[in-house]
Amino acid sequence: MRPVYVSGAGMTRFAKHPDRNFRSLATEAAQTAVRDAGIEPGRVEFVAFGNAAAGILTDQEMIRAQIALLGSGLEGVPMVNVENACASASSAFHLAWTAVAAGQCELALAMGTEKMTHPDKKRAFVALGRAVDVEALVKEQGEAVLTEGPGPLFMDLYASEARAYMERSGATQRDFAEAAAKNHTHGSLNPHSQFQRAVDVEEVLASRLIADPLTLMMCSPIGDGAAALVLCSEEAARSLGRAEVRVLGCVLGSGRREEEAGAGLVVRTARRAYELAGVGPEDLDLVELHDAASPAELIISEELGLAQPGEGPALLRSGATRLGGRIPINPSGGLVSKGHPVGATGCAQLVEIADQLRDRCGPRQVEGARIGLTENAGGWLGSGPAACVVTVLGRA
Amino acid sequence: MRPVYVSGAGMTRFAKHPDRNFRSLATEAAQTAVRDAGIEPGRVEFVAFGNAAAGILTDQEMIRAQIALLGSGLEGVPMVNVENACASASSAFHLAWTAVAAGQCELALAMGTEKMTHPDKKRAFVALGRAVDVEALVKEQGEAVLTEGPGPLFMDLYASEARAYMERSGATQRDFAEAAAKNHTHGSLNPHSQFQRAVDVEEVLASRLIADPLTLMMCSPIGDGAAALVLCSEEAARSLGRAEVRVLGCVLGSGRREEEAGAGLVVRTARRAYELAGVGPEDLDLVELHDAASPAELIISEELGLAQPGEGPALLRSGATRLGGRIPINPSGGLVSKGHPVGATGCAQLVEIADQLRDRCGPRQVEGARIGLTENAGGWLGSGPAACVVTVLGRA
Repeated sequence: MRPVYVSGAGMTRFAKHPDRNFRSLATEAAQTAVRDAGIEPGRVEFVAFGNAAAGILTDQEMIRAQIALLGSGLEGVPMVNVENACASASSAFHLAWTAVAAGQCELALAMGTEKMTHPDKKRAFVALGRAVDVEALVKEQGEAVLTEGPGPLFMDLYASEARAYMERSGATQRDFAEAAAKNHTHGSLNPHSQFQRAVDVEEVLASRLIADPLTLMMCSPIGDGAAALVLCSEEAARSLGRAEVRVLGCVLGSGRREEEAGAGLVVRTARRAYELAGVGPEDLDLVELHDAASPAELIISEELGLAQPGEGPALLRSGATRLGGRIPINPSGGLVSKGHPVGATGCAQLVEIADQLRDRCGPRQVEGARIGLTENAGGWLGSGPAACVVTVLGRA
Repeated sequence: MRPVYVSGAGMTRFAKHPDRNFRSLATEAAQTAVRDAGIEPGRVEFVAFGNAAAGILTDQEMIRAQIALLGSGLEGVPMVNVENACASASSAFHLAWTAVAAGQCELALAMGTEKMTHPDKKRAFVALGRAVDVEALVKEQGEAVLTEGPGPLFMDLYASEARAYMERSGATQRDFAEAAAKNHTHGSLNPHSQFQRAVDVEEVLASRLIADPLTLMMCSPIGDGAAALVLCSEEAARSLGRAEVRVLGCVLGSGRREEEAGAGLVVRTARRAYELAGVGPEDLDLVELHDAASPAELIISEELGLAQPGEGPALLRSGATRLGGRIPINPSGGLVSKGHPVGATGCAQLVEIADQLRDRCGPRQVEGARIGLTENAGGWLGSGPAACVVTVLGRA
């Protein structure tokens, strides 16, 4: 496989965009990335388009990319529509990276788009209820779950994971609030972030309880957005004058209904990504990880090997994961502050790393960042996520 | 890019399977292909899973592969969910081929699955209505189209294409009936075919008129099924003793709202596929093409360069496209007879070619077949399909 570079990156602001449609979001992100790469859209040879929920939220299925990119300048470029729940966009990135690495094309676009807000507010929850075994869910909760949405399915799962983690690691609700406050503070420095207000631990703790121990400000919000990256061969990157960021490795993994303790999907996927990239957790300068709710940040910091098992709380408390610390986690604000339009998130994480490695992040810049990792997971198979992609980017 | 082989192939019978669910179909096809390759499912390193309509027809979205393959032996293998309307399965094949060609993995599984039959018969048509610009469709036909389904959308499109083709080529309704009768006769020799009864031209013409000039027997039916192929590196193919079929090229294309006359999506995609494979139409021994309705067989035979523009009817009338002819088209029965569970079709076409190149097709065997091509298209963008994949396989 040949070297692959990220030569352009762009995203919309993540936010509730009630007056913008799916196409408008996709087009803005795609055109921004392409412009950033210094190319005309028509030079792109392959588009891998991630989306998770448009089938339910916009009624468009089957050819989402082709419809979303009509009139964008990318019309007629070969496109594939990719779904992997909340890991849809990183799965698209994986495929675009593979195509360039294979020598199948010189320039590819990876992107993710999600339009979650809907006049019918329950529609987003109905959609998220499709990221589990639907047949089993209907058996459990009845047919109404298909039109009314399940209970707070994912936040209940996350809360239950959080309680188990508290028991084995000694993490407290205040730790989770600390992680949330850190990320909201990071997000306040990010013009693409859905929330842009620094909050403190007390405010997080005082926000509405969603599912013990999760409070509202520890949970990623419903929102809309799109993110895109141009990937290219070394030759193309050099000729564009944009050979600054290289893909060191990108690994896709899928879950099982029953995972071995300590060897779950994120752990397996991260191990393979480190091996492929030829780096270890100690080499990373920053990480964007899938904090769909704040406890996940501590849990995943262990799964990625940033902390030893049970040491997630100590890592957080040390301040190492804050901007300015040894290994900033979610400098973008993460899912909790930057937002989580589900099928866009994986590419947005990669946009942040690509921008950090190019010193473009202003007040939230991680000084001297050379190697960054993203972890993006999605769906639920009973004991963990159904899909996970771990990617390592390096300054070339 | 390194050479890639097809080392295993399998499919369910295409049929109305009212008592089988999505998982049962997917599992049968996947396990048959894996067994045919002589491997344990756990050796597969990547699954590209095509599906078009499960979101509407089974309510499962986002992680269709992971749910469909629970308990199949493939649980835990990295999976990606691929949509491209009726070209979903061939798009999945394209991605699996790319992954092996890139050297990313040694063994990959490409598959497509569709469960179209539903107690509510209109549901399949509702689903097919998602393969166009849904926002535009709703503007045109009203919100009811989302729950009641559009009119006979695709058959109307095909009929209008057919009438335009009749004008420019001199094709007659009898020609289309001839193509249908040929394919029903081919299908009668295929145990995987939905229809298995040879019919003659008069019977096709006498069947119910769907949209002038299409009669019922010229239209692909609603059905269920799944098809899968194991792709692997040359080294893996040799060590398995299954290096008989090589992928000479596989090209993905996407459409535009307005295509240039004579240079539409199928033409563009086929040209690139011939170039990549290093063969021309004159080198082909057989073709499986996307006859969603029979006129398409004549139109596409021209687009693939099997006949000069306007010469599709002459090619058909010559008998060359029948089994035993110079260039048999749709020896499997094609979509009209074998059936068209939309997200499975592309892989089923490839299963047929792989089996033909391995002399496994019994009474419908194309003698001495060495090179075969598939053309699979899907969705609609105003003047033509939204997605198309053309693949060339060769006997190694």
